[in-house]
Formats: sequence, structure tokens, C-alpha cells
Amino acid sequence: MLALNRHPSGRHFLQIPGPTNVPDRVLRAIDQPTIDHRGPEFGELGREVLAGMREVFQTRGPVIIYPASGTGAWEAALVNTLSPGDHVLMAETGHFATLWRRLAERLGLRVTFLPGDWRHGVDAAEIAAALRADRAHDIAAVCVVHNETSTGVTSDIPAVRAALDDAGHPALLLVDTISSLGSIDYRHEAWGVDVSVSGSQKGLMLPPGLSFNAISERALARAEQARLPRAYWDWRDMLAVNDKGYFPYTPATNLLYGLHEAIAMLRAEGLPEVFARHRRHAEATRAAVEAWGLEVLCLDPNGYSPALTAVLMPEGHGADPLRKLILDRFDMSLGQGLGKLSNRIFRIGHLGHFNDLTLCGTLAGVEMGLAAAGVPHRPGGIAAAMARLAVAEPPAR
Amino acid sequence: MLALNRHPSGRHFLQIPGPTNVPDRVLRAIDQPTIDHRGPEFGELGREVLAGMREVFQTRGPVIIYPASGTGAWEAALVNTLSPGDHVLMAETGHFATLWRRLAERLGLRVTFLPGDWRHGVDAAEIAAALRADRAHDIAAVCVVHNETSTGVTSDIPAVRAALDDAGHPALLLVDTISSLGSIDYRHEAWGVDVSVSGSQKGLMLPPGLSFNAISERALARAEQARLPRAYWDWRDMLAVNDKGYFPYTPATNLLYGLHEAIAMLRAEGLPEVFARHRRHAEATRAAVEAWGLEVLCLDPNGYSPALTAVLMPEGHGADPLRKLILDRFDMSLGQGLGKLSNRIFRIGHLGHFNDLTLCGTLAGVEMGLAAAGVPHRPGGIAAAMARLAVAEPPAR
Amino acid sequence: MLALNRHPSGRHFLQIPGPTNVPDRVLRAIDQPTIDHRGPEFGELGREVLAGMREVFQTRGPVIIYPASGTGAWEAALVNTLSPGDHVLMAETGHFATLWRRLAERLGLRVTFLPGDWRHGVDAAEIAAALRADRAHDIAAVCVVHNETSTGVTSDIPAVRAALDDAGHPALLLVDTISSLGSIDYRHEAWGVDVSVSGSQKGLMLPPGLSFNAISERALARAEQARLPRAYWDWRDMLAVNDKGYFPYTPATNLLYGLHEAIAMLRAEGLPEVFARHRRHAEATRAAVEAWGLEVLCLDPNGYSPALTAVLMPEGHGADPLRKLILDRFDMSLGQGLGKLSNRIFRIGHLGHFNDLTLCGTLAGVEMGLAAAGVPHRPGGIAAAMARLAVAEPPAR
Amino acid sequence: MLALNRHPSGRHFLQIPGPTNVPDRVLRAIDQPTIDHRGPEFGELGREVLAGMREVFQTRGPVIIYPASGTGAWEAALVNTLSPGDHVLMAETGHFATLWRRLAERLGLRVTFLPGDWRHGVDAAEIAAALRADRAHDIAAVCVVHNETSTGVTSDIPAVRAALDDAGHPALLLVDTISSLGSIDYRHEAWGVDVSVSGSQKGLMLPPGLSFNAISERALARAEQARLPRAYWDWRDMLAVNDKGYFPYTPATNLLYGLHEAIAMLRAEGLPEVFARHRRHAEATRAAVEAWGLEVLCLDPNGYSPALTAVLMPEGHGADPLRKLILDRFDMSLGQGLGKLSNRIFRIGHLGHFNDLTLCGTLAGVEMGLAAAGVPHRPGGIAAAMARLAVAEPPAR
Repeated sequence: MLALNRHPSGRHFLQIPGPTNVPDRVLRAIDQPTIDHRGPEFGELGREVLAGMREVFQTRGPVIIYPASGTGAWEAALVNTLSPGDHVLMAETGHFATLWRRLAERLGLRVTFLPGDWRHGVDAAEIAAALRADRAHDIAAVCVVHNETSTGVTSDIPAVRAALDDAGHPALLLVDTISSLGSIDYRHEAWGVDVSVSGSQKGLMLPPGLSFNAISERALARAEQARLPRAYWDWRDMLAVNDKGYFPYTPATNLLYGLHEAIAMLRAEGLPEVFARHRRHAEATRAAVEAWGLEVLCLDPNGYSPALTAVLMPEGHGADPLRKLILDRFDMSLGQGLGKLSNRIFRIGHLGHFNDLTLCGTLAGVEMGLAAAGVPHRPGGIAAAMARLAVAEPPAR
Repeated sequence: MLALNRHPSGRHFLQIPGPTNVPDRVLRAIDQPTIDHRGPEFGELGREVLAGMREVFQTRGPVIIYPASGTGAWEAALVNTLSPGDHVLMAETGHFATLWRRLAERLGLRVTFLPGDWRHGVDAAEIAAALRADRAHDIAAVCVVHNETSTGVTSDIPAVRAALDDAGHPALLLVDTISSLGSIDYRHEAWGVDVSVSGSQKGLMLPPGLSFNAISERALARAEQARLPRAYWDWRDMLAVNDKGYFPYTPATNLLYGLHEAIAMLRAEGLPEVFARHRRHAEATRAAVEAWGLEVLCLDPNGYSPALTAVLMPEGHGADPLRKLILDRFDMSLGQGLGKLSNRIFRIGHLGHFNDLTLCGTLAGVEMGLAAAGVPHRPGGIAAAMARLAVAEPPAR
Repeated sequence: MLALNRHPSGRHFLQIPGPTNVPDRVLRAIDQPTIDHRGPEFGELGREVLAGMREVFQTRGPVIIYPASGTGAWEAALVNTLSPGDHVLMAETGHFATLWRRLAERLGLRVTFLPGDWRHGVDAAEIAAALRADRAHDIAAVCVVHNETSTGVTSDIPAVRAALDDAGHPALLLVDTISSLGSIDYRHEAWGVDVSVSGSQKGLMLPPGLSFNAISERALARAEQARLPRAYWDWRDMLAVNDKGYFPYTPATNLLYGLHEAIAMLRAEGLPEVFARHRRHAEATRAAVEAWGLEVLCLDPNGYSPALTAVLMPEGHGADPLRKLILDRFDMSLGQGLGKLSNRIFRIGHLGHFNDLTLCGTLAGVEMGLAAAGVPHRPGGIAAAMARLAVAEPPAR
Repeated sequence: MLALNRHPSGRHFLQIPGPTNVPDRVLRAIDQPTIDHRGPEFGELGREVLAGMREVFQTRGPVIIYPASGTGAWEAALVNTLSPGDHVLMAETGHFATLWRRLAERLGLRVTFLPGDWRHGVDAAEIAAALRADRAHDIAAVCVVHNETSTGVTSDIPAVRAALDDAGHPALLLVDTISSLGSIDYRHEAWGVDVSVSGSQKGLMLPPGLSFNAISERALARAEQARLPRAYWDWRDMLAVNDKGYFPYTPATNLLYGLHEAIAMLRAEGLPEVFARHRRHAEATRAAVEAWGLEVLCLDPNGYSPALTAVLMPEGHGADPLRKLILDRFDMSLGQGLGKLSNRIFRIGHLGHFNDLTLCGTLAGVEMGLAAAGVPHRPGGIAAAMARLAVAEPPAR
């Protein structure tokens, strides 16, 4: 068997902002024999995970589960609702927004990409302006990333919804919740989102390999007219058999076992408690960054991500040598800077299956790494984090 | 945790023609902590599984690994090589050929579908005729299913290649190897296939969730002109980073652990020995069917599938009640009749992680089921199978 | 990791009469992180498994769980109730009775060993005679093996109890239930047994490593006077903390996880159904042996073991070459002849986590093995077994 | 399945000084199907683990593996070498030395128990004096605990050996290495130990359930005369079959799988590197304790345990409420005070599968716990530990 950890001793700290640390319970659930995906037991499994995902998306409407990565669910959201040449409005919140835009363009869509500095969330006022200016209702969809995994900045989805409503604009609202679902409060139905896109390997605490679309009535109706070619991603084939718990092609059965277990864990903790836990750990992390005298990438306190924190390196110091040193010496993986932030930031994931002491170990690793790499900083980050943990919203019990 | 087997005792016999019984070693490999898909250990894993899959496809050319079901790899083969309105020649070998056709049409391709009776493989002469008739070289691709999982009939891929060559026709040859790869001798390169499509849950002994394209040089060149919209499936993004063992979006890491282990198992047994084992078990199964006085669906001995055997029910007896009885009483899942064969056949999977005694248990279950369901048959199937096992090609050691 | 199966493909058939095939659910339960054996969660686990084992032994009295093999529980039964030089009455039912006797002698006990032919259970009349003759009540304990794993013969425990009662003899009744508990009806309390000895790796479907004593009030009282030196095995230390679910020294925590799961499985199936299942499989196995024209070792139909069947080899044919051939060719482990039965019998285990099709595979392996090894026999064993399965007591549902 | 962690999220910190955190690799190894303990594959497994354990004990002589807890291996060491009424010299290093003494007395041995204050290791001069005074050579064995798990104090075994040698005394030297083996340098052969006693659940990183005796030639010879009754523990039965890799009664097969993997991990890291890692983590832990202004229980710097650190509570503050608070709030298990130290100390385990960041998380949990519980202390423990980690012997790579 492949030796997966070059470090001789102790548990790896997987503190990238996803894939996250998979709970033992979920791994063991996945490690059960595969069953007949057309048999009665599978039907039960299918119905339960589909119902559970509605809870997690906070919607009564349908959720689609794909055997695919999150990128596939991005594609699915677009091909099910749009036609070749359709105009979509997107906002440059960071690397993943940029990738989604590129994907849309490769599918033959026209994209208006509102520029951003990668340090703020979506500017709802700008969206509103663009929509008001679009009197012809040329824009078919507005696509927004709820939590930019590349920057640690969240966007205000209800504000974007309000922009659409205020403009009386019929465009669909498509939201990427890949790194927010199961970590940050997200309400597909109450917030009036038309398609929510997500993946398994973040707040859902699963390995990668499943992705999701939650769908509104309007999106479903739009799917009837959409003319982008689609087959694998087609919602209609899914919905035709999902009510009995089945799938139109072979599903990723063992990952669905894990999903069943992960949903049970989220239910047991309680979604509000899960969200509070993430906020608390993010607060403590920012306290550490501040104590180190370093800068959080996100410039808008309202946009601080509860799921991850991106930290700017001081001028003249690369993030990648620091990350390599921390991996080599402390057996911790941190997220790299992506796209134009390459080597300029590192990202601390504090989402998923996580707790106070793992956070402390994580921050201690960063602090020791900063020292060992000769990165200018003040010590005391871990102490500041501990102080914050002591007074912040108490952990869910 | 979901109780996955309603039977109180003993191991389930998963004898559908896939997903197949996953070896304990593979399940345990999957049950390892997820790692950073951008870290050095992942690169090693990625390189090793990509190299291993070339061995399994018997090619020196590139293999693409998707976090997706086999249906996705069908779609990938088409969207990477074809343009809207392109003409493809397909052959109706059974339900899966029919589904692939439907998928092609939904992607906007024009399909000529050579009719078939679901009891024979592809008629290479008919293909040849169609190609010769196509003087304008309108046909862009010929799509064939190597082993029709819905019927237990294989098609002669070298004969189809010869038809193309003899006609001097430039169409690409696309072959579905979903239920043959790792079970039935299949040679992507030597047979001159342009795109081979496969999945993880059959001869590769993995849970579903991974699928594959093996690609020829010509297919790669064609991908540069192909204009069907594509993003998730785009080979070029994959190939750009695969050489270092990475993937352009988050891969299904834990299933890749399993793939690594499954490749090691196939290597340890030896591909020729794996293929011989499957032939031997298929022979013994057909001996049982013959002894029962029942009819194997496949009418052409050259097309008998080493991976599964489909058995026709006597007139007036439904296959589905028999399958239900066998599931309820003997805790064995058999494959159902699909499409127009619904309720008329049952399919015995004898592929993947399998051995003589599991085959005997399987055939005993069918024989006891036939008796209990009152299906007219002669006893002695299991005895005939055992006799055949005694003289057939000995098992690999 | 050690490669545990030299066979390249398929699941090993572990048909020795123990250790038995461990269910995936139990293995996965064992594969959970070890916890603090003095913490609150452990207490809950401990209380639940201790209560569950009382159900399995069919007693309201205490059950002791040792981190040890069954041999340890034999020793525990003796050292907790007897003093140096005490006289115990034992019966030679086979190899394990002989080993228990040897163990008793090594502990300094005087053993009267009623001779037996290894083909019958205990002769209760002989026991009765010995007890009646012992007017001085010199005999301190009667030790009997309920199911002789070396021979496949059960003994009538209520008859032995009656012999004690009829003789008005105060000797304790100690019973080895190692290969009967969880497979064959056994009632510690109703049958008036004083100490029942058992192990984890048979009907309890666990790996080896746990063993048990179920204890009567009388045995407990006797423990106060017993003077054989004891520490590790001392019931009193156990009982002092077991009520809170704890143990006096570090318990085998992970095996206890498995025990928790195994108890849940036995409860779900129901003990009467478990016992009926074993009887049915034993019947079918004997039908096969009879059809082969071979001889079941057990000569008394009342003593036929529901858990295993020992088969005598024809004169001039060794059992061990047959077993080796079956292991090499069919990847099945059968039990060897022990002690004076070495090479003269093979033993088929049909206990634990088992079902009809696994039995059929097992018997097919034996039948093919007999043929391949040139052992004189008639074919048709598997057919006879299938016929019996069709009419015998239906499987538990 | 039993829910084993009441905490809703994140990995439990099991920082008792054993059972320790079991590596995923070891758990997965244990989660493999049980095999025939008399088959050829088992023989290979048995030979490899027996050879591996000789490396771990640093001896060329035999090692015995029991399916039992460490307490059983204590008993085994005594019953194999001593006779009823024999005189043994023991030293009161703490709770476990006291328990071993009690066990010896219950086996009928006469114990001279050199008193100790539970804050120092064995006083070799006192041992020497006792041996010199014993001109009649009445003392049959000297029993010493290498690393007192209850106090975090190690004893100087070579000094005890020297005391025996200097006195020309023939008593055997028996050493408990339960919490030192695989964590602290220990040399059975070079140090002239006669019987070394150990267990699986500490430095060997396994669940509890296996224990060990390493044996000198002299001890083996003594076993021929020893007259304490023994059967389960008898070395001779073990040695008679161990050379082929088998055991005289059913071994704990699945735990042996884990042992095989754990030995491979120790080999990969290297024993000297393992020992250095433990020393380094102990140093950092003591730096934290000192920074808190608390007192390490061990009063002799030469006796500081590399495996665990026991911390004295300030007067008027109980350790158990602190431990409970830390368990409830931070999901970390710390070791309790045992025997006369009950509620007066807590013990931090830093042994086994462990690394820098887990240590930091652990110490952060203690520091936050001290604050939350209102225990007088200075902050800065974690900072002191990090500073020490930065300069101490670098981690093994």
C-alpha cells in the first residue's frame, strides 16, 4: 500500500481549506462493501441522503448529487439553465470566481466579469447597477461565489438577491457554496437562490468525489428551455428517479455511505452550532494573525470567512518556502496562494471536522514556521488565539 | 450508521455485473485519510495510478482519470473529439449502446444506429459497408461497446478496426470498455482504438466514482479541432498537469488510493491470468445454464462474455420475481434485464474480485432460486459447472 | 502491509471451526480510535457489552470479559473456584477436553478423566456413576465441553446437571462453550451451570482475543474459598468495577467495540433464529457428507454439532494433503484433525457469520477437492445439501 | 454502532499515557479479515512479528507474545521463574510498582518492598544494600519498573544490574517496560535483564490486548525449576511452536496484524530517532510546566520520563475537576492521579504516535483548562514549549 505520510510519527495536520480532515466515522462508513445500486437497500440510502442534503442546503426543493468534483457542479448549474451565447454576470472575487468564469466561457457563454481586488466580497451595488442598466434583460444569470476559497472572503448573498429583486430583473441567481456549505450559514431557499453549487470535501467532511446542485422552481422551469448540450449533468434524468432514491447512472455508492454519516454528524451537532463553531475558530485565527503583526487578506470585516483565513506575507518573503518548511518540519499542509496570489499568501483552513486544540496545534505550527523561516513577525499569536477562544462564543456541546 | 444488509447473517453475494465485490484491501486503502491534492505525496500517487492505468489499458499513450461515473467518460470521449452536428456511427448491441446513442444525440450529434438483436456483437461487415458507403467521410467516429453489460455479448474490436482500415476511413474508433477492462483482454494501442472509455466499478474492483479515457495520438490531435463545448471533461487541462501527477480540479483522492491498490492486485495476478480466470468462470457458468436447460442470451459463441452471463427466462416466467426471491432468500443480487430485456433475463456477474467457490455459491443460489420460484429447469447446473472447473484452464496461481 | 492472501483473486473461505469469518461491520467497529479506558464513554461501552454478554449466555448473573484467548478462560474457571490438589472430573470428548485436562493438571489439580472415543459426547450416566461413587464429595468440579471443536460432537449439558442433582453432589459444573456460544442453544442459568467458559472467535464472530466466564452464585461463593493462586484471572477484581463498566486493568478496548457490534447483530437476528440457522446448515452439510459416501465423525445423531462437521477420510487417504490441495486450489481453509485424529479427519466450520450460499461454495470446494485429490467418493454432495436447504427449516429473516 | 465521542466535531486528543493514539495505518491493518492461525500465511506473520519484537526489545533472545493485557505479562514473568514462597525484592516507585507487588503477593510470593516517595526512581544503592545483606541468596528476583506510568519517573536499569553484579547476587532481574518500550531507550540484552515485561498500547501504538515477555537464557533455565502453577502463561508451550511462527493456543490474530504494521513504522523512523523524539517532546512539556509555575512530580532530572509528564496541582485545587473540564470543553483525555496521587496530579502522555503540533494542541488545552478552572498559574506554557521545540534536538526526518 502506498505510504501516504512521509513523516514518521503523528497525525498529519491537513489545514488546507479543503479537502478537510475526514472524520474516522465517515472513513469507516465509506469502507463498507459496495451494494447493488438498483436494489432496495440502495433506494433507502439514496432517499436518506437526498433528504439530508435538503436540510443542509436549507431548502425544501430538489438537490442533485453528482459523482463528480465541484467543478462538475459548476458546469451542471450552467448547462442546465443556459443556452449557447447567453449572457452571465459574474464577479471577480478571486481565483475560483475566475475559474468559474473561464469555464462559462468555454461552454460558449458571454461573461461580464465585474473586476475585483480579491480582498473584498461581491459589491452588491455594482451588481445592482449592472442589472438596472440591463433593461433588455439580456443577462440570463448572475453567478456569485459565497465563500472565496482562494481569499477567505465571503459575499453577501441576500444583498445580491435584493439587487435582483430591486431591479426587477429575471436573471437567475447561481451561487457557489463549495467551501461554505456545512460551515457557514447558507440558506438556499430563504435567500432566493436559483442554483446552489457545492462539493463534498469541505464542510461536509467527505473525501472529494461528490458534488451538488440545489435547485429552485424557477431554475427547474428554465431547464426546460436551456439549450446548452447536456447529458451527464442533466437534472431531468436525475429527478426522474431520485424520488425513489435511485440515480440514472451508477452513483458513487461508497461516498454516499460517507455522506449519510456526515449528514448524521451535522444533525447531531446542529447546523447553527456548526456555524457558530466556525465563526469562533475564525475569530481566534484572526486574533493570532493580528498578534503576529501580519495582515489578513480580507479587507472587509463583514467578509471575513469563518471557513479559512488567508494571510498576506510581508514584502520580500514568499509564502511557498514557508509552507514547504511547515510541511517538512511540522507535517502540516497549508493552502497555497492561487493565481495572482501565488506565493504571496498562505491559507489556513479551519473548517470541517475541527476543534479548539486542533486549531491551537495549527496556529502553533504557523507561528513556529514563521520563526524558523525567518519571516518578520511578533510571537504571541497562539496566546492571542487562546485568549479569544476563552471569551468567544463557547463551543457547541 | 446505515445498516446496509437486511440479511441477518453472512456475506452478501454481489453478483450483478458491476459494481462488483470490492476486495478488502481496496476498501481499506480507500479508508485512509484524505491528503492535500497539491502536495508532494499526492503527486507520487497521481503519477503511479496514471502509469498503472496505461498498463491496464495496454497503451503507452495518455489515460485520463475523471472523478465521475462511466457515463461521464462516454460524454468525455465525444465532447473532446467531435463538433456539433457531427455524424457518428454506432451499433445497437444492447441497452448500454442505446444509452450511449441517446447521450450522443443529446449532445447534438447525428447518430446512425446500426440495428441489432441484443444477442450478437457488432457486425463488422455492416460497419465496413457503412464506412465504404460514406465516401464523403461524413462519419466522424465509430462507437462500439466492447462488452455489452446488458447482454453478456462481446464485440470484435480488431474486426471493427480492420473495417475502418480496409475502407481507408478516417473516422475515429471509440470503444466502451466499461465492463471489460481488467476482465477481458483489451488492447487500446495494439487494436488501434482512438478513445477507450472505462469505469472503476467492474474489473478494476473499485467502488463506482472514477472513469477513464485512454487516448490515441489521433484522438488528441482531433481534440484541437473539436467544437462541442467542454470544460470539466477537457483532456487538455488534464494533460497539462498529469505528468506531475496532479489534476486540474480536485480529484477523488480516496478512490485513487483504491485504484492504486487495485492496480497492484492486477499486476500481482498478471493481466493474462486475470483474463484466463474470467474465461474459465464464464465457461463454467454457461455449463450450468446449459445443464439447467436454459438459454444463454448470447447467440454467438465468439461473443460469449467472460465477464457476465445473461440467461433467458422460459416463456411465462419473469426474471424479476426470481431475482427478488434470490435476493430475499439467499442474499444474492443478480443483474436485472434492462430496456427491452426487462424481466426477460437475469444477468450473472462473474467478474472482478472472484474465485471458484464464490462462483459455486453463486450458481447454487441461482439453482436453488429456480427451484423455489418454480421456474422450469433441470437440476445439475452446479454439478456441471464444477465438472467444467475441474477440466478448464486451471486458475492462476 | 503484510499481504495476507496468497491467492490473487476472490475472498478467502475461512471454514475452519474458528476463528470464523468476521463480519465487515465488526471489523469496522474494531477499526475505531482507541479511547480512554477510564473515561465516561468507556464506561458506557463496558456496561453495554457486559449486559449484552449476559443475554448471549442466557443468564442474569455476572459475566467476566478477559483480554485473553479461550485457554485463559479455561484457566480462570479453575483458579477462581478450586484449590491446589482439588479433584475434578473431566470427560474425554476430544482434543480440547484433553487440553483442558492437561491445563488442570498443570495447575496442580487431580483429574479423573473419563475415557471417550472422540465420537460421542459426554456419557451422563458415567458421570452420574462417578458422582454417586464419590460419597465423600471429594470431587470439587465436573468439567465438560459443550461442543467439542475437535470432533463436531456436542454433549448434553442438562443431562450432566441432572446427574449432579440426582446424586445430590455439591461439585460445581464447569462448561466449555467456546465453539457453541452464539451458535448452539446454550443456557447458563436455566441449565444450572456454575462456570461457562467461552471465547470471541467463534459464534461471536469476532477476532480472537477476548474470552469469558459466566458465573453462578455458587461459583462466586466458592471463589471466596478457592486457594489456587490467582491475580490476572481473579473474578473479584473484575466484579468490583464491572458494574460501572470498567475493568481492573487495561481491557482490549477495540475488540470490545467489535463485541458491541456483534451483540447488536445477534440481537437483530435473534438468538433462536441464530441457533436454527446453524442447525439447518449442519443438516445440509451432513447430507453432503452422506451423499459423498463419507462418514461423519460423530456417531450419535443427538450429538451432531450445529457448528461444525468433522468428516472421516477413507482408509489410506490423508486429510492433510486434501486440505492443502483445497487451500492451494480453492483458497479455502478447513480445520485439521487434532491430536489422535491428525490427518484422519477434516473439519468444516459452518458457524458464525454465514449463509446458504457460503455453505454451498464451501461444500463445492470440498467436493471438487475430493475429486482433485483422488479421494474415493460419490459426487452429488452439493446437490444433496441444496435439496436439504430447500426443505429444512427456512432461514431466519 | 456505539457513538464513541460525545464531542460533535474534531479529533479527540487521547493524551493519557496509554492507550495512546493508534495510527490509522495500524487500525487499518487490524481491520483485515482474520485468517487461519494454523495456516501458512499465519506462520509468516508470526515469524515476522516475533523477529520484530526482538528488535524492539533489543535482544537476540526469545520474546513471548500473549493475547493479554500488561498485567498478564507481569504475572507471566513471575509464574515462569518463581516458586511458591519465593522472596522477591521490589521497589515502590509508584502505583504500578505497588500493583505488581500486590499481584506477586497474591501469587504467594514474599515481597520485600523498598519504600519510595513516588517522585524518584529506584534507588540502586538501596537495592545494592539489600542484595549485599542477603548473603543466603534468599532473594530470587529483583523487580523494577523502568518507567512508572503513574508518576512519570524512570529508573536506572543498568544501575540495578550493576548492583546485582557487584553483589555477585544470582537473583533474576525482572523489569516492567510497559510504558517505556518503543518510547524510551531500553536494551533487554545489553542491560542484562532476565525478563522484560511489556504491553501493546503505549509506545507500540497498538490498542491494548497484547503483552510481552522478553527472556534471558538464565530466565529460561530458571523456568525449568519454577514451581508456581502455570499453563496459559507457560513460556515452554510458546517456545515449542514459536519458531515456526505459531502459538500454542489461538492468538489475537488481528492485533498481530497491527503489531506487524507498528513494527514497520518503528523501523522506518528508527529506534534512536523514536527515543530522541520522545525526549524532545518531554523537554518541551516540562518547559511548559515550568512556565506555568507548576511543579513536575518527578524530583530527579535524571528520572524525567520521556513518555509522560505528571504535574502536581497547587494546594487546594483538585486535578480531577480540571481533567473533567478539559475533557468536556476541549475533548482531551489526560491521565488521572492513581493511588495516593488521586486528584493531586494530572498526567500528560506524549508518547507513541505523536508530533510537535499535537503536543502544542495538548499543551494549549492544558493551559486553557488551567485558566478556565481557575487554577493559579502563569500563562506562557505553550510559548515556552514552542521555544524549546525550536532549539531542542530536531525532529527525526
